[in-house]
Amino acid sequence: MEYVIKLGGSVLTDKSREKTLSESFGDVTDTIPEDYSGTVVHGAGSFGHPPAKRHGISEGSHTGVLETHRAVKDLNREVIDRLRENNLKALPVHPLSFASIQDGDINLRLSQLEAMVQEGFTPVIHGDGVITPQKGFKALSGDDILLEIASRYDIRAGFCSSGPVLDSDGNIIEKVSSMEEFPDLGTDGTDVTGGMKAKIRKILESGTEARIFGPKDLETFLNGGDPGTQVTRP
Amino acid sequence: MEYVIKLGGSVLTDKSREKTLSESFGDVTDTIPEDYSGTVVHGAGSFGHPPAKRHGISEGSHTGVLETHRAVKDLNREVIDRLRENNLKALPVHPLSFASIQDGDINLRLSQLEAMVQEGFTPVIHGDGVITPQKGFKALSGDDILLEIASRYDIRAGFCSSGPVLDSDGNIIEKVSSMEEFPDLGTDGTDVTGGMKAKIRKILESGTEARIFGPKDLETFLNGGDPGTQVTRP
Repeated sequence: MEYVIKLGGSVLTDKSREKTLSESFGDVTDTIPEDYSGTVVHGAGSFGHPPAKRHGISEGSHTGVLETHRAVKDLNREVIDRLRENNLKALPVHPLSFASIQDGDINLRLSQLEAMVQEGFTPVIHGDGVITPQKGFKALSGDDILLEIASRYDIRAGFCSSGPVLDSDGNIIEKVSSMEEFPDLGTDGTDVTGGMKAKIRKILESGTEARIFGPKDLETFLNGGDPGTQVTRP
Repeated sequence: MEYVIKLGGSVLTDKSREKTLSESFGDVTDTIPEDYSGTVVHGAGSFGHPPAKRHGISEGSHTGVLETHRAVKDLNREVIDRLRENNLKALPVHPLSFASIQDGDINLRLSQLEAMVQEGFTPVIHGDGVITPQKGFKALSGDDILLEIASRYDIRAGFCSSGPVLDSDGNIIEKVSSMEEFPDLGTDGTDVTGGMKAKIRKILESGTEARIFGPKDLETFLNGGDPGTQVTRP
């Protein structure tokens, strides 16, 4: 396994319309080469977030867990179909079936992803509702999944998001190594949403290194280049 | 977890027509009560077997693994929808996502099923193609799944199949405790197919106890009765 990439929900789907793929869906997915060796993670986007909001996940609502799960599986199927058209041996991996979160610890079965990659397949895993034993269910994000994988293996980890991290003047920040460096993150930057701030915090807390870049930079990243913003502790 | 039952592919589907539910599908599924505490396993039936035969699973054919997986998931969805109509909080569990077979040992994540049951949910798991690390993929049957669960927990285990085990005169055999007792099994009995013989052998080898009965006896079994054929080592 050489890579783990996360294709953001905002990249794959049209967030303003429920269960709708984005215009860039095809271009982004087609960028992943036939000989890609790694895991593909994707977000829930406008497939999973609306039912999760409508019904809730955490309270053990079986409607919420199941509807969200099914919606994200539908997006997963779209990704897999497109990857297969490009001759990747993509296989679905659905966290609800096996993952759990207990006392904040995420329990993923990474050996399964590793075994699939070793067989020449590409596991495609997604954000999902997962069980928190004795406490119902909880949302496990695609970001969390990427960081779990990146923390276990010494591989290149990339978030293909709406874009790199920008400062308040709209310039690319090439490297972030602490939250204190950029107090404006999440407030002023053009593309810097609260979501981005949370993502950076999670990467720094995980102790792993990852890059955040936009869809146009995915090819560069997969060719070994270093686009976008590097996030890593000093 | 008090029960594990397997709804056979021949009970849920019309084996003569691909991807077609059987006439008894609704009645059988409706027999499972709202307060059922356990796991439901189901076979692949006419959903999963045809694509598995067409494309193969074992040779690492990504078409075979994926098409079979998708077809069985479709059956799984039908079962879950029906159980939900009856107010069971049914959730899908897909073995391809997490299970493996290595040197003949089946690796299932039973703790996940247990956690779901403890939350008041009903995991619905199915036969599937699963990874055999470094050797491609292999079919994991619903029978194998039931026996793995029954071997781990001290619970009532039942195979809801085409019917109980019959002797060569068509009479119900009430108890089977060795293969030697009934040399005719699999050759002469009306309802005793090679599949039944293999099932009995597996149960005896697993060291656990299970009952085999027809769809009409499912209610009796779930009410604590002892219908059909008991299979257990002496």
